[in-house]
Amino acid sequence: MLGRSLLATSLAAAAAQNASCSTVQADSLNPLVLKAEYAVRGRLLDRAKELEEDLAAGKPLPFKRIVKCNIGNPQALGQKPLTFVRQTLSLLMNPALLDMDLGYPADVIERAKAYIAAVPSVGAYSDSQGVKLVRTHVASFIAARDGFPASADDIYLTDGASAGVKALMTLLIRGAHDAVLVPVPQYPLYSATTTILNGTLAPYYLDESASWGVHLDELKRAHADAKAKGATARALVVINPGNPTGQSLPQAAIEAILAFAASEGLLVMADEVYQENVYGDAPKFSSFKKALARLRAKGEAGDADAADLASKAQVISFHSTSKGFIGECGLRGGYFELQNIAAEVRAQITKLASISLCSNLVGQFATGLMVKPPAVGEPSGEVYAAERKAILDSMFSRAKRIAAALNKLPGISCNAAEGAMYLFPNVAIPPKAIALANAAGMAPDEWYCIKLLEATGLVVVPGSGFRQVEGTWHFRTTFLPPEDVLQEVLPKLEAFQTEFMATHGPAGKQEL
Amino acid sequence: MLGRSLLATSLAAAAAQNASCSTVQADSLNPLVLKAEYAVRGRLLDRAKELEEDLAAGKPLPFKRIVKCNIGNPQALGQKPLTFVRQTLSLLMNPALLDMDLGYPADVIERAKAYIAAVPSVGAYSDSQGVKLVRTHVASFIAARDGFPASADDIYLTDGASAGVKALMTLLIRGAHDAVLVPVPQYPLYSATTTILNGTLAPYYLDESASWGVHLDELKRAHADAKAKGATARALVVINPGNPTGQSLPQAAIEAILAFAASEGLLVMADEVYQENVYGDAPKFSSFKKALARLRAKGEAGDADAADLASKAQVISFHSTSKGFIGECGLRGGYFELQNIAAEVRAQITKLASISLCSNLVGQFATGLMVKPPAVGEPSGEVYAAERKAILDSMFSRAKRIAAALNKLPGISCNAAEGAMYLFPNVAIPPKAIALANAAGMAPDEWYCIKLLEATGLVVVPGSGFRQVEGTWHFRTTFLPPEDVLQEVLPKLEAFQTEFMATHGPAGKQEL
Repeated sequence: MLGRSLLATSLAAAAAQNASCSTVQADSLNPLVLKAEYAVRGRLLDRAKELEEDLAAGKPLPFKRIVKCNIGNPQALGQKPLTFVRQTLSLLMNPALLDMDLGYPADVIERAKAYIAAVPSVGAYSDSQGVKLVRTHVASFIAARDGFPASADDIYLTDGASAGVKALMTLLIRGAHDAVLVPVPQYPLYSATTTILNGTLAPYYLDESASWGVHLDELKRAHADAKAKGATARALVVINPGNPTGQSLPQAAIEAILAFAASEGLLVMADEVYQENVYGDAPKFSSFKKALARLRAKGEAGDADAADLASKAQVISFHSTSKGFIGECGLRGGYFELQNIAAEVRAQITKLASISLCSNLVGQFATGLMVKPPAVGEPSGEVYAAERKAILDSMFSRAKRIAAALNKLPGISCNAAEGAMYLFPNVAIPPKAIALANAAGMAPDEWYCIKLLEATGLVVVPGSGFRQVEGTWHFRTTFLPPEDVLQEVLPKLEAFQTEFMATHGPAGKQEL
Repeated sequence: MLGRSLLATSLAAAAAQNASCSTVQADSLNPLVLKAEYAVRGRLLDRAKELEEDLAAGKPLPFKRIVKCNIGNPQALGQKPLTFVRQTLSLLMNPALLDMDLGYPADVIERAKAYIAAVPSVGAYSDSQGVKLVRTHVASFIAARDGFPASADDIYLTDGASAGVKALMTLLIRGAHDAVLVPVPQYPLYSATTTILNGTLAPYYLDESASWGVHLDELKRAHADAKAKGATARALVVINPGNPTGQSLPQAAIEAILAFAASEGLLVMADEVYQENVYGDAPKFSSFKKALARLRAKGEAGDADAADLASKAQVISFHSTSKGFIGECGLRGGYFELQNIAAEVRAQITKLASISLCSNLVGQFATGLMVKPPAVGEPSGEVYAAERKAILDSMFSRAKRIAAALNKLPGISCNAAEGAMYLFPNVAIPPKAIALANAAGMAPDEWYCIKLLEATGLVVVPGSGFRQVEGTWHFRTTFLPPEDVLQEVLPKLEAFQTEFMATHGPAGKQEL
């Protein structure tokens, strides 16, 4: 207990020194953080909060509720969690319930027992890489999905997909001379993280006129452009199915992109969190891992070029419990899979994971439940399949309904949603409205979205938050509101847009 | 569906380009990540894993089990979760259980209903700052603890304390010219994060001879030293109770440190995750928030110097569900509280939080359950109090038992654990052993810890992983193994150390 008296100091002495103090203010923060943008929860949401308070205070507004279509958050808009998932998790939370007759199906109890036995406690840190049994389940899922082997050693469990993306970009980006090829429009996690890491964003544009497809020439242009600016492209981000753009890329496109990336020494970061969200006649989901495995198989069959590319292609694929039909955003579960990543690099990934100790175990087990659902014929199988079908059918039906409603409106055109949870309509904002937005110090589409919010209660995200071809304007809306809410809000949207174009128009639809 | 054919490319063309490829290898990673060290899960743990596999394979070893004392992970070593916490969480996971008679106490049901009503679903993203009701509970806890008001608006809920620390350091550190004052020995989250952010670590040394106390002169020296090296100290990290050092700082010390920090314009990052872990006659836990509130009160009572300092002092305090007696490491709950942080800075903190969407909701609610336990007289109150007492009493008893065992051994001296979950004994490694370690390319204490592991099955962390006064050697051990395991392992430790000193000694105890 010695030494403590040495701490005595006088307030006066301390205060005297205070003249030169530099407390932490906004102007002394990391400028890279200041520069980073993340519009999904930006100014529009602040305005929505104000309006929500107005509604609560009984203020008369042209709508009865705020409908949050700004974020893919299904359970916030009424989607129910899957029974199998939540029954099992309730047993993990309190294993004492295993001794009671809750009427839970046998496969729920069996899975809970297996997961409980796999760790000392759900309340203990796991290995930084994640619980081995869950990683084994993930590997089996990938193997069954793709028809090629997968290994638990290649899997890292994460708090949602975002945590993995951030860790890997931290590992990859050394400074402004390192570039990341990112689609535009893109989910702003990628641009924000690149900015914070002082990396260079090398945008490649998706083709709105071709269902937001990827052109190889455009990838090459973006790659060359980064080089011309003195930056080395290190990674290529592909979001498939697309966010915010909703396209589902066919297998041939995935394979061509992978070959390009391998030939240029680009690590592919494959954001595949919407892999279960592919609708109707759209190209079926096809993973980058599968493309790599097929390349390997070709190589093993004697194609020397394929063997060469396969040996050099590097892929890290991301998945999450937040999307699909499980929609467990709040549980923050996810994983990434490494392919062709050297042991020394893995060691660094593990070190980064270990600094955060481990991802949350409920999210880890939710990931296990997502990738290893009850099979048909198992006690929970029928209910699970019915819940799955109801959720996905309803999403597709709502997507079609909203897209059709949008495409009827003057000044708006919208690609069909092939996948994901979003529509990304093009809005031809008339010059008169653009002038008003400029005068208000806002991007035209942000200004438009605020007007839309104030007229309808709909919260969407301006296209500028995702980047877009200059001179075009969009907004992203989820298609998650339930049917009865759509019934209420779509006529308001129609009335708003009709009046908006009558007031500020005319403007022909933009050339795509 | 146009544009997709444009992707066609030939493998041969791609492979031809491949000559110039630069795939991601260890030598092209972010050098700051490569440089970062995090020893709590380092080489020693790899060796422990090997030995665990040897044991599983039936290989004869001088011990029956690996005892992991490398990490404060109570439930991995047999601590049971609190009944109140897990009963409530099981209801949150499956609200359908509310309709059944589980024999849960009324306060469990009531709390579950309140938390379920506070969000659209536990499976939905919450506000990035965290669920408002939980933040309200945190504010009430702080107010009751300190006797001064607290506000939910100042609270951010996080995935454990680490996530908050990393976000705030990201916001603060602009480059090598920004320094962070960090205690040595320290929990390596701080050094690793500073390194990754390219900041400058400005170590201030705790005084081992004075129960690991903080000397104001040493703080001044470290601050001046950073300045002399061209770096501006922006923040001062204090870990109280200490990790790895286990001291509990008295209120007067906290107040003096705060006054120093305020006078120098240093933001205090107060790591108070062990605030419930203070034992015996040690100084009671006293928070930095309370010190600031007392300074404010003095100022309001007319002390102009206090008022001036109070207006300038900036404090961010961290807490977690992982420690205390709740010990829910796997759930990754935690929070930080802001004091005297400007609105523009808060906006940046919120933006950073929103890029990660939100912390996991089970962790958020576990935080609520931690800060608002059942009161005496409530249905769960008695069981809760008994579980709390049993856990804390047992921790203190095991801490004393291990410290006593260590202090009897030649070459080892160990301060009593006043708080936290760790002992940090000083080991006088003899010159002969140091030479052997050097020959093996290891820090002497790492080499020592591996020998200890191989002889006893005990996994501890070498002092070099936390930094220490040069020429001194330590290891950190938790005091979490249950009594029967201690019974087994302490004699092995005694035999090992006696033989170690007989083989490599003599060495007098080091001067402290």
